[in-house]
Order: sequence, then C-alpha cells, then structure tokens
Amino acid sequence: MYLADQTWPDLGEYVANESLAVVPLGSTEQHGPHLPLATDHLIAEHLAREAADRAEVLCTPTVNVGVSPHHRQFHGTMWVDPPAFRDYVESLSRNLSYHGIDRIIFVNAHGGNIVHLREVGRRLRDDGVAYALEWMWNDSIPDLVDDLFEHNGPHGGPKETAMIQYIAPELVHEAEFERARDEGVVDLTEIEMVVHGSRTFYDAIDNTESGVLGDQTDATPEKGEQLFEAASDQLVQLIEWLNDQPLDALMAKPHVDPQPGSGR
Amino acid sequence: MYLADQTWPDLGEYVANESLAVVPLGSTEQHGPHLPLATDHLIAEHLAREAADRAEVLCTPTVNVGVSPHHRQFHGTMWVDPPAFRDYVESLSRNLSYHGIDRIIFVNAHGGNIVHLREVGRRLRDDGVAYALEWMWNDSIPDLVDDLFEHNGPHGGPKETAMIQYIAPELVHEAEFERARDEGVVDLTEIEMVVHGSRTFYDAIDNTESGVLGDQTDATPEKGEQLFEAASDQLVQLIEWLNDQPLDALMAKPHVDPQPGSGR
Amino acid sequence: MYLADQTWPDLGEYVANESLAVVPLGSTEQHGPHLPLATDHLIAEHLAREAADRAEVLCTPTVNVGVSPHHRQFHGTMWVDPPAFRDYVESLSRNLSYHGIDRIIFVNAHGGNIVHLREVGRRLRDDGVAYALEWMWNDSIPDLVDDLFEHNGPHGGPKETAMIQYIAPELVHEAEFERARDEGVVDLTEIEMVVHGSRTFYDAIDNTESGVLGDQTDATPEKGEQLFEAASDQLVQLIEWLNDQPLDALMAKPHVDPQPGSGR
Amino acid sequence: MYLADQTWPDLGEYVANESLAVVPLGSTEQHGPHLPLATDHLIAEHLAREAADRAEVLCTPTVNVGVSPHHRQFHGTMWVDPPAFRDYVESLSRNLSYHGIDRIIFVNAHGGNIVHLREVGRRLRDDGVAYALEWMWNDSIPDLVDDLFEHNGPHGGPKETAMIQYIAPELVHEAEFERARDEGVVDLTEIEMVVHGSRTFYDAIDNTESGVLGDQTDATPEKGEQLFEAASDQLVQLIEWLNDQPLDALMAKPHVDPQPGSGR
Amino acid sequence: MYLADQTWPDLGEYVANESLAVVPLGSTEQHGPHLPLATDHLIAEHLAREAADRAEVLCTPTVNVGVSPHHRQFHGTMWVDPPAFRDYVESLSRNLSYHGIDRIIFVNAHGGNIVHLREVGRRLRDDGVAYALEWMWNDSIPDLVDDLFEHNGPHGGPKETAMIQYIAPELVHEAEFERARDEGVVDLTEIEMVVHGSRTFYDAIDNTESGVLGDQTDATPEKGEQLFEAASDQLVQLIEWLNDQPLDALMAKPHVDPQPGSGR
Amino acid sequence: MYLADQTWPDLGEYVANESLAVVPLGSTEQHGPHLPLATDHLIAEHLAREAADRAEVLCTPTVNVGVSPHHRQFHGTMWVDPPAFRDYVESLSRNLSYHGIDRIIFVNAHGGNIVHLREVGRRLRDDGVAYALEWMWNDSIPDLVDDLFEHNGPHGGPKETAMIQYIAPELVHEAEFERARDEGVVDLTEIEMVVHGSRTFYDAIDNTESGVLGDQTDATPEKGEQLFEAASDQLVQLIEWLNDQPLDALMAKPHVDPQPGSGR
Repeated sequence: MYLADQTWPDLGEYVANESLAVVPLGSTEQHGPHLPLATDHLIAEHLAREAADRAEVLCTPTVNVGVSPHHRQFHGTMWVDPPAFRDYVESLSRNLSYHGIDRIIFVNAHGGNIVHLREVGRRLRDDGVAYALEWMWNDSIPDLVDDLFEHNGPHGGPKETAMIQYIAPELVHEAEFERARDEGVVDLTEIEMVVHGSRTFYDAIDNTESGVLGDQTDATPEKGEQLFEAASDQLVQLIEWLNDQPLDALMAKPHVDPQPGSGR
Repeated sequence: MYLADQTWPDLGEYVANESLAVVPLGSTEQHGPHLPLATDHLIAEHLAREAADRAEVLCTPTVNVGVSPHHRQFHGTMWVDPPAFRDYVESLSRNLSYHGIDRIIFVNAHGGNIVHLREVGRRLRDDGVAYALEWMWNDSIPDLVDDLFEHNGPHGGPKETAMIQYIAPELVHEAEFERARDEGVVDLTEIEMVVHGSRTFYDAIDNTESGVLGDQTDATPEKGEQLFEAASDQLVQLIEWLNDQPLDALMAKPHVDPQPGSGR
Repeated sequence: MYLADQTWPDLGEYVANESLAVVPLGSTEQHGPHLPLATDHLIAEHLAREAADRAEVLCTPTVNVGVSPHHRQFHGTMWVDPPAFRDYVESLSRNLSYHGIDRIIFVNAHGGNIVHLREVGRRLRDDGVAYALEWMWNDSIPDLVDDLFEHNGPHGGPKETAMIQYIAPELVHEAEFERARDEGVVDLTEIEMVVHGSRTFYDAIDNTESGVLGDQTDATPEKGEQLFEAASDQLVQLIEWLNDQPLDALMAKPHVDPQPGSGR
Repeated sequence: MYLADQTWPDLGEYVANESLAVVPLGSTEQHGPHLPLATDHLIAEHLAREAADRAEVLCTPTVNVGVSPHHRQFHGTMWVDPPAFRDYVESLSRNLSYHGIDRIIFVNAHGGNIVHLREVGRRLRDDGVAYALEWMWNDSIPDLVDDLFEHNGPHGGPKETAMIQYIAPELVHEAEFERARDEGVVDLTEIEMVVHGSRTFYDAIDNTESGVLGDQTDATPEKGEQLFEAASDQLVQLIEWLNDQPLDALMAKPHVDPQPGSGR
Repeated sequence: MYLADQTWPDLGEYVANESLAVVPLGSTEQHGPHLPLATDHLIAEHLAREAADRAEVLCTPTVNVGVSPHHRQFHGTMWVDPPAFRDYVESLSRNLSYHGIDRIIFVNAHGGNIVHLREVGRRLRDDGVAYALEWMWNDSIPDLVDDLFEHNGPHGGPKETAMIQYIAPELVHEAEFERARDEGVVDLTEIEMVVHGSRTFYDAIDNTESGVLGDQTDATPEKGEQLFEAASDQLVQLIEWLNDQPLDALMAKPHVDPQPGSGR
Repeated sequence: MYLADQTWPDLGEYVANESLAVVPLGSTEQHGPHLPLATDHLIAEHLAREAADRAEVLCTPTVNVGVSPHHRQFHGTMWVDPPAFRDYVESLSRNLSYHGIDRIIFVNAHGGNIVHLREVGRRLRDDGVAYALEWMWNDSIPDLVDDLFEHNGPHGGPKETAMIQYIAPELVHEAEFERARDEGVVDLTEIEMVVHGSRTFYDAIDNTESGVLGDQTDATPEKGEQLFEAASDQLVQLIEWLNDQPLDALMAKPHVDPQPGSGR
C-alpha cells in the first residue's frame, strides 16, 4: 500500500493494527552516458512499491536525493551532505513512530547511502524508537548477479542497466553501452583502488572517464526482469521476517551480567 | 527538461549555457477524507515539470516530505523537523551551484514550507551562492482562485481538490466531499483562530475534525484544469523573468553610503 | 510585575501560584531617518510592561536584538542569525519552565521575528514544556490602524512613528518625516514586491532608499497614545484569556482514533 | 553614543570613521533578598553607556539574560544554556563587523559570562573578523574594592550592593541587608568550596541559603559612586587604549619561523 | 618521529620541509575474555609509531576511544557517538594543516571507525584542506591473514590475539582462549548475520556471548610478529607512496567538460 | 585499575559494585624549547594511573589532545576546537554511565581545558547523569608549589619541568633551560597581560618568545618527585572523598521553597 495515495481515514486500520513501513531511498547522480541520473531512485522506488504491495505493508514516498558527492564532477549529479542527509532521514523516520511504526526497512539502491542509513538505524534503535534495517537490493541476490554478468560493476554496470531496461526502458541509451564500457572500467581488477591496504580514491572520476564500471553490453531487459523479480521476492520475505519478529528480539539487548550497580 | 531522466552527457550543453533550476517541494500529509496524502507534492511536481518543459529549463526531482507537524494527529502524516528540512534543502541547493546553477525556483505547494524556503533562500543569497525564490502556486493566481470558489479554504479545500481531480483523478474520493466539508470548516470566519491579535492554534486538529477547510463540493476537474493552466503559465513567466535578470540585480545590494571605514 | 526589579524572595508567591510570563522581544534596526534604531524593542518593552502591570503578571527583560538581516545595509542595524536567535529564545523560555511557567506570551514588535517565535513556540508545545504565543501589537488592532492612517506602512510608517512619538518623543526627528516619506515608499501598491506570485525581494533596500514605507507625516503623539492604549488593552485581555485556559486545552491534542497500535 | 537612540543617517559619520563598539552584557538572576534580579545587567548597562558617552564611541543595547544556571534554584533566575549564549553573542558581534566594527569591548557584570565571552572573542579573532575584549568591571579596580569592603563577596556582596544603591537606589531593600548576610556567607574562607584542589560546587545554593556572599551591611551609596566613577574611568581608558592600537597589533600573530612549508 | 616527544624547536625542520602526519586511532572496547579493552588502540599505536619511525615522518598521539556502541553491553566498553567522534577527529586534523600538514594517514585498528574516518577525509579533501587516508592494518595484508589462520574472525579473533601476544604479551590471558572460542563464534558462516540481503544485527552481543569471533587458540606470538612486520612494512610503503604524490594528484579533480557556465 | 588493560570479565565485579571513574586529559602543545609537547598529557596520565591504583578505582585511557589554540603558533601544537572537545568528552563520559559510573574525576593537566570540563560537568549533573569534577594537579598543592619555586610560571615553568624530570627524564632538554627562561618571561609581573582590568592577550606568543613562563633552571627531579607524591596523595584523598559522598549530596539541589506551582 502506497502511503501517499491514501487518505488519512484509509490508513486508520493500518495504523491500528500494523507497525511496519518501507522507505525507498536512492540518489540522483550520474550513471554513465547510457543511464539516467534517476537510476538509483527509480530502482528503489519500484522495488519498494512492488514488495510492499505484495506483502500488504505501507510504502512511503521516495527520498530522491542522497549522499553522492563522489559523482559531483559529472553534470547534474545532485547530493546532500552526510549530516543533513542523516538528520533528514532520522527526522522522517522518528516521526513515523508517532503513528505506531516501530520497524522500518530502508529500501536503498545507492551504495553511498548505506553507512548513513545504518547510522540512522542505530540512533533509532539505541533510543528505543524503532528498529530500522538498511536493505540494498543487489546484496539480496549476489549469486544471481554473479551468474548473469561476467563484469557486473558496482556503479552503472550491467546489473543497474538491466534493471532500468526493465523498469524504464525509454530512459536507456543502448547506443551508448559501448562508450560506457570503453571509457569506463570493465574489470575492477584493472584499476588501483587500494594502495597497501588503503582505499585511495574518493571520487568516481578518479577511476573512470565515463563515470561507470563493468560491461554494460551484457545487459538485457530480460535479465532486468529476472533481477527485479528475484530482488522483490527477497524483499517480500524480509518484510515478512521482520513482521514476524517480536519487538523485544529486535531492540537492543541488556547489559551483560553482572548488571551495573547490582552489587551495591 | 527533467534532470533525473537525463544522462550526464545530455546535460553538458545546459550546464555550459544555463544557470537556472526549478526544485519542486511538497508534503506528505493528510488532506481530508477525500484527497490523498500526496496532494501537495503531486501539485508541486506536476506544475514544476510542466513549466520547466515549456520554458526549457531544468527541473529536479521532488522533495516529497516537508514540514507538516501541524497535521500529525491524522493517520499517516509524515514530516521532517524544521532544522533538518532547512539543512537538507540548503545542502541540495548549495550543491547545485557546483554545476553553475545560481538561480533557483522552489516550486512549493505546501504552506508549512514557505518560511523555511525563504530562510534557505536568504542563506544562499547572503553567502553569494545563488538567488532562490519561493513560489507557491495559488499565490500566483489569487483572483482566479477567488473567482472560482466561494470558500476556497487554505488546506484541502476546493482549490486543491480541483487540482487533484485534474492531475490525478483516480486518487480523489468524490463520495467524501460532503463529509470533508461537514466535519471541517467551510468558512474560516466561523472559527476563532486569532485571539486579541495572536494566532492561538498550532495544529490543524485544533480547528477541524476532517482535517480540511473550505467547501470541497465546489470542486470540478474543469476548474482544476483552469487552475493548472493559469498557474503553469505564471510559473513559465516567472522562470523567464528570472532568467532575464542580471545576477547583480538579484544578489544583495551593497551597504549604503558612506561605506564602512571609508573615512578612515 | 517586572521580574528584573524583584528580589528572589519577592517572587515566591508568584512562582507558587502563577504560571504565566510575558517576554518582550524587538529588534535594533534602521527605522528611517526619523526614528531610532530602538523603535521595535521600545514598543515591545513598553507594551509588555504596561499590560503585565495591569494584569498583574510577570514581565521579563527585553530581548533587544532580533532577526534583522534584511535591514543590514543601513548603518547600525544589528541582527542575530535565525538559528542563533531561535536557540537563544528557546533556551530562555525552556528555562523559565523550571520556575513553573507553562504559558508564555512573546510580546513582539518586529515582523522579522514572527516565524521564529512561532517555531520556538512549537518546539516548546510539542515537547510538552509550555504553551507560547507570539503576539504582534499591530495585529491586535488592525481596524484602528487602518482608521488612523491612510498609508500605514509595514516598517517605519506612521503607526510606528506615532507610537514612538508617544513613548519616547525625544527620539523622534519630526523634521525628517518628509524625507522619510519622499525617499521611501508611500503606497505599497507602487512597488513590485511580488512577481508572478513570488516574493522577489529579500532586503528593505531593494525597495526603499530611506529604509521605510508609508506616510510618516500622518503621525501624531495623540494617535500614538490611542494605539498604545488600544494595544495594551488587547494584550491585557490576551493575558487574561490565556490565564483562564486549562493547560490541557492549550497543549497538543492526541492522535485521532483509532489510536496507533490499538488494534494489535 | 547609544546606538539604539540614533537613526541610521545619524550613524553615517561613525560608520565611516570609527571601528569600535561597546556591548553591555549581564544576567537576570537572584542577588539575594536585598538586590533585584537586574543587578548585573543594570551595572553593565550603566557603566557601558557612561564610558561610551565620555569616550565618544558607540554603545549597543544590553544583552540582559546570560549564563546563570548556577542560580536557578532561586525564584525567577533566568538563563540561557552556554552554547546558545555563545552563538547569540557571536552572531550579534560578527554581524557588527558588517558596519566596519573590528574591535569590541564586552562590558560584562556577570562572572558566569566571562569564559563564554572569551570563547566568542577567540572565534572572532582567529577568524580575522574582529578583536573583542571581555571586561568585568570589578577586575579593573581590585584595590579600591579591597579598600572599601572587608568582605566584598563575589556575588551579591557589598560591592554590587553599593553599585545598585548608587545606580538604582529604589530597587535596593536595605532592610534585608542583615538577612542577606546572616543567611549567606560573609567570609569565603568559612566554606569548603575546594576539596583537595577541586572545585566541588556547581550551584550557589550549595553554599548559601540567601543566595549571596560577603557583608552587605558594609555598602553605602557613596561607596557605590566611588566604584562607579573609578570603573567608568578605567573603561574610558580601555576604550582609548583599544582605539589607539593598530589592528595588526591586536589580531593573531603569524606562525613562528620557520614558516610551514617554507623549506619545500 | 613521535610528535609528542619533541619540543617545538625540534619540529622546525619538519614543519618547514615536510607535509605528512600519521594519526593512530583505535578503540577501548571489549575484546573477549582473553584480550584487553586496549587491543585496538595498542595495535594502532604500535604500528603507527613503528612505521613513522622507519619512514621518518611525524606520528601524533593516539585517539584511544572510538565509535564502539556495538560493544557496549560488555563491561567497560567506552565509546563516543559518531557525530562527536567525527568532529573531534576533523578538528584535530584540520588544525594540523596550520603547520603545513596536507596529507594524513589515519592508522586505524577498529572497524567501527572506518566509515567515520572516510567521512572526515572527504570533508578535508572537498574543502581543499588536506588529503587524508584511512588505513586499517589487516586490510593491507589479507593474504597473510588468511594463510596464518583458518578462522581469523573480524573481532577479537586470532589475528588480533596474535598481535597483542607480540606487542603486549602480559595483557593476554591464554587460559581464556578456549572460552573465547567456545562461547563465541568460530565460523562466521554459522550465524545468520544477513537476512535476505539485509544486515540485521547491530550489536556484537546479538551474535556472540564471549564478545568475539574466530578461533583464538590458533594465535601465537610468532604469528603476531609476522603480522606486525608485514603490516608495518605496508604502512611504510604507503607513507612513501603518499609522500611521493604531487598534491594535485591527491586533491579533487575539476568538473568535467564542458565547465559550468563556460558557454555563457 | 587501568580500564584498558582489563578484559571485560575482569571488570564485572567493579561494574557491579563501584561507580567511580578517573579520566585523564591533557594537551599536546608546545612547552618551550626544553619540554616535550606531551608534557600535559604525560602528567595527567601518570597522576591518574598512580592515584587510581592506590585508591583501587578505575582509570580510563587518556584524552591526549585538548583545547590549545593559544599555543598554535609554535611548531607541532595540536588542538581541538572547544565545541568538538566538549562534545567528545561529554559523549565519552555520558556513555560511561551505561556501566553504572555516576561520579567522574577529570584529572587534568592543561589550564585550557578547565572551563570546558566544568561545562561538561554541568551538563552531566544538570541532566542527572553523573557528577563530574575537574581536578588540576597544581591547584591541589598550591603551597608546596610556592615553596619549591620562586617563579613557578603557569606554563612550561619549573613546576611542569620538575614533573617531567621525574616522570620522563629522557624527554627533558636541560641544556635549554636557560634559553627557555631568557626568551620567555620569568616574572609575570613584568608583562602587561591585563589592561585596565581586561585580559588583552589571546595567545602565548603575545607574551613569550620561547613559549614559556617562569624560571626553568629552578627545577630538579627531586622537586618533581615531591610534587608528584603530594599531588597523587591529594588525588587519592579526593577519590576517597568522592566515593564517600551519597549521590544525593552530589547532585543538584531542588528549587527553594515555595516550590513552583505549589500554591495552585
């Protein structure tokens, strides 16, 4: 159920009986010469809506702009600085608890958001407000991703390309696949991203001229559909798992024994 | 031109030659028993995209959740606290300037965002980063709004109802128009909102049981279309006006004479 | 009763029995060539003290410097940035609650403070700390203001001029009234302050050379006395109204039915 | 010259030629059963105005509420938390620099403000904005204070009592002098304020029942006048000294030799 | 060269000619029943000092307490909340640049600090202040770690155990190795840490009773020495690599062509 | 007992039965040509460990970098800005309370930290979290310091010199004692630090070329030992005193009578 399409009386039953919400988050950032800047927020939104509908839980509107300073050198990349992003998402999530929401899934399609969503999740959990999970779609189907593509690329690669071919084919420039690949990095092992154990790069432009990684020519809408179905299915199962947990089992455990001050 | 649909190379020409962006912002909050919670962000998004396309300027994705604590007692209302909202919008706007954007129109459809967008606008202007305008659609066509409706209501009234009837008719519950009206406040003069000059209410629920104001039965899709066309037209003209101003004329004027320290 | 003139034992009875405080706030900013920079804080202070004395409630010292960046181009205008202003007033108000104050009237005479005082008021109310009202003197007597002056001007106009003529006549430069008017804006309809529905100006200097608006030559001390008496009277009534409300009726209402989680 | 009494054109010459402002700051806090809560801000304001007039420099309005949580247990004490106080004063001071003010004297009469004003001063100086001095009146005339009173008391003692007897005699309750002394602490050596080198108390109430220290019966208006004249005189001299310094001599010195990077 | 052992004149030559500093950071948190809470900061400090000495660069004192809320249920774990940790490290690093330091290596031995140090690094780099690298010792020698231990465990496992056996053998409780292993998790594949692609645990205690992971009985001081030597060597090479880079090559690249505004 | 040397099970008994922790804090800043930058944190650490061991209480690791912007012009001085320092120490202290610690002694050896530690202490106490004391070693033995040295100097003088001669003699450059003295300030009365009651200097370099004050040639290791023993002894007594106080006696007293609202 998509929250924003409802009227407030429509939501009365849900608020009374349920306690879970799905919040899609993405980015608006360059994805090479072949994919739209919307790529990440489109993926997050479509997966979140699909799974929420199947699982009959609430899905909120999408947070479209995320933490993407590392793509800023490419035209049009939008971003919010990390402290502002965290505080915005925390405030939005904390206020959901006013309606009885105490478990949240951040459906995320942008790697740059992960650590910030985990940090927000900790704030909410350590304060006893809610239990929030960060879920990144491709992390739920690693084997399928590996099976489908030889060089899947962590950004703008064939897995994201295939997804957009399936979700929003009109936004994909297939004629640019070769340029994306040839001016990018096909195989991550080709580039020096770690020097003596330290990740030395900060920006995508440090490594790739086209802005992307992997072999885009390997993508097809059919593979996109496979990815979409498999990831949606994982998300539905995660929602059901989360709904089945007692709240106690989700929130922070107490201090180990002996308890502080117990002997005084 | 909708930024998020473009690839980064698509935007090269714009970035090189243009300097204006339109940013839609709304809310996700109760709009009575007849309208979806999406009402404000739908209106902002549709007007912004339409006018940006006509005027051939860049439109960003929408900020869907705004400052709506005053509607929180009604199911499903989402909100972000003012400092987090301001910082998020400021960061997003400030970072647009990295691509040469120095004039921004915040296309807004939620009254509760106005003062915060003005404050963000001041920060950007006083720092010399950009000149940003807050534009609220109904403020651009006050006479038409008055002509079309007897009791237009500042929230969830016939003007917003008509707009959604035109933009997203499938989300409107016409069967609930009478309830919206009868459990709300038709005529604002009926209620005591100001006591001896002081606005005493903080929340919508302080005044209205249905969450809305005005007479919703007065709304039609045709009136919605009129509003949409008229407001889009105003926004196109505003974009053109803003594009025509020299930057100097927009940014802060210098200190009056005698200049500080000039006599030393 | 003026708090700062009392010793702490003098206040014991008040603290035990009462729960209301009046806090005057103004600005220190240019008010044209004819009025002192103190104009706003003088008005706020005099009205607050007068009404508090008549109503036998506590009045605190005045916050003399407010949010006035829009007047900064004129010599001597002082201001505090909005986040610092809000936090200062919030802290001051929150700490009053330590003495049992749970209802506050911000007696305000500066338009630029309004939205910030409302925001502080919401913080206090939503946290359950206190119920605070923003009261702007001229908003309490709109008809009288309209009756007395043809062009009353929202800043440095005849209504503020008359007030200072009555409160602090020695600070008024009557010889400058004509200059104030002629280098300012008599009739607001003359100037373009809103373009296609958007307020385009940020600073007073964008519109007026003298810094002020309205026709100052229309002011007299007698009119000032009328304004002062009428506004004081309104404030006394507001104090009495506020004192008469049960705290429950002032603080935030609960979530509508069904209550979150009630069905679980 | 008192800034707030001027019109903006009145200040043109000052702004063009001068660069110093005096900012009075105090507190609104309990000063025993015999002195008003205004004590500190009255003293700061009177000294600042007097000295600024004599030295022909600009004096701003007074910041009336300071950092006084340590007096909060006594009725009516107002306070602002340190971060909010520092940010308010910093913002106010930083914005004065817009008018060419690059040297500021914080005329302070409340011990609890000292460290915060020093911290604000450092922020301004290290940023190259202005050079600000904290000046506490009694620190300028330590010998006179010692000569006039046997037990001068750091808070609400005879030195502050005498000052208020001179400045605002109508606010002094002479009949309460004995109670102030007898329920307070006459001689600081009587009380244990430091345990093994550590200051163990946080609040005035930890040490004194009347809220004050010293022997109040030793105060007279004549002594108050002596103090006032002597302190004003010191402040005038400080203003002149500060005005005479080249800005270079006031602002931060460069890094010692060899300069960082000089050998590269 | 250890900064804190030097006098300021001792550092003159370094400040003039060099621009690199090594900053060790760790944590003070439970490491099972067999290792001291100091484990991470000891490792960071010893590696940083050793490598800095060999490479003849500056090493600062250690930041001993890091971001460890996930270990808080175990006695004695200390931690600092992420915003405070980031701001502390940022301030410390930013201020190093006052002495000409424009490249920093954060020598880190605590996984929970990584993302925060990367975020600080971005702040410094995007502001043009300095280029900072996060270096985690075991990430520099992954093959050796894998070769030495069958179950190396990400926390309190044999690799950390061996390191402390070498660095500070007197702090290791060998008699507790078996308990550490048996009440912990030997093989990470045994536990469900990821549910349908989402990391569901927040705290160590969610997975392990002893607080640790891996097989501690596999650790020996000799292996510790091997790890120490190999990691030190990597760090020396990283320092040399970093020192050899031109600053330009380290700092952020410019916006891609066409440059913003270039066509105007 | 040094916390960081323990395993978590080792601390079970302490956590159950005790409630006090000692936290050493210093600085890393220039101490003249004869003493290491570590001076302050070495002193704090050695005293804290010694006294905690004798008194059988818990000592945490040391915070090595403090608030030292006033020494920044001298090579190598490290510092953290005050807000970041306060928040770091507050977070660290607040989180100790998770283990039942409700009384803390900040063992401090740097004057520049004092006011910030007092402010952190107030935050903790006013929130009811813990009672924290700031203890500066030389303030506990003022008479001994005066007896041992003619010109003890508040920074880098003979008292600190003697302490380091005793604690870490290998770091003392005795050959530089004369330079320290001759290029510094032997007798504080020689320099103008206060002008008409106002402290005019911000940085050490404003007064001293060598960075230090006092007569360093007066220091000996034997005097250092005397100081160390005497100060340790004071600290042990302070720990015992603090442990003996009921928590009630340490935390904030209630509001004086009549209680707020008691008469309603």
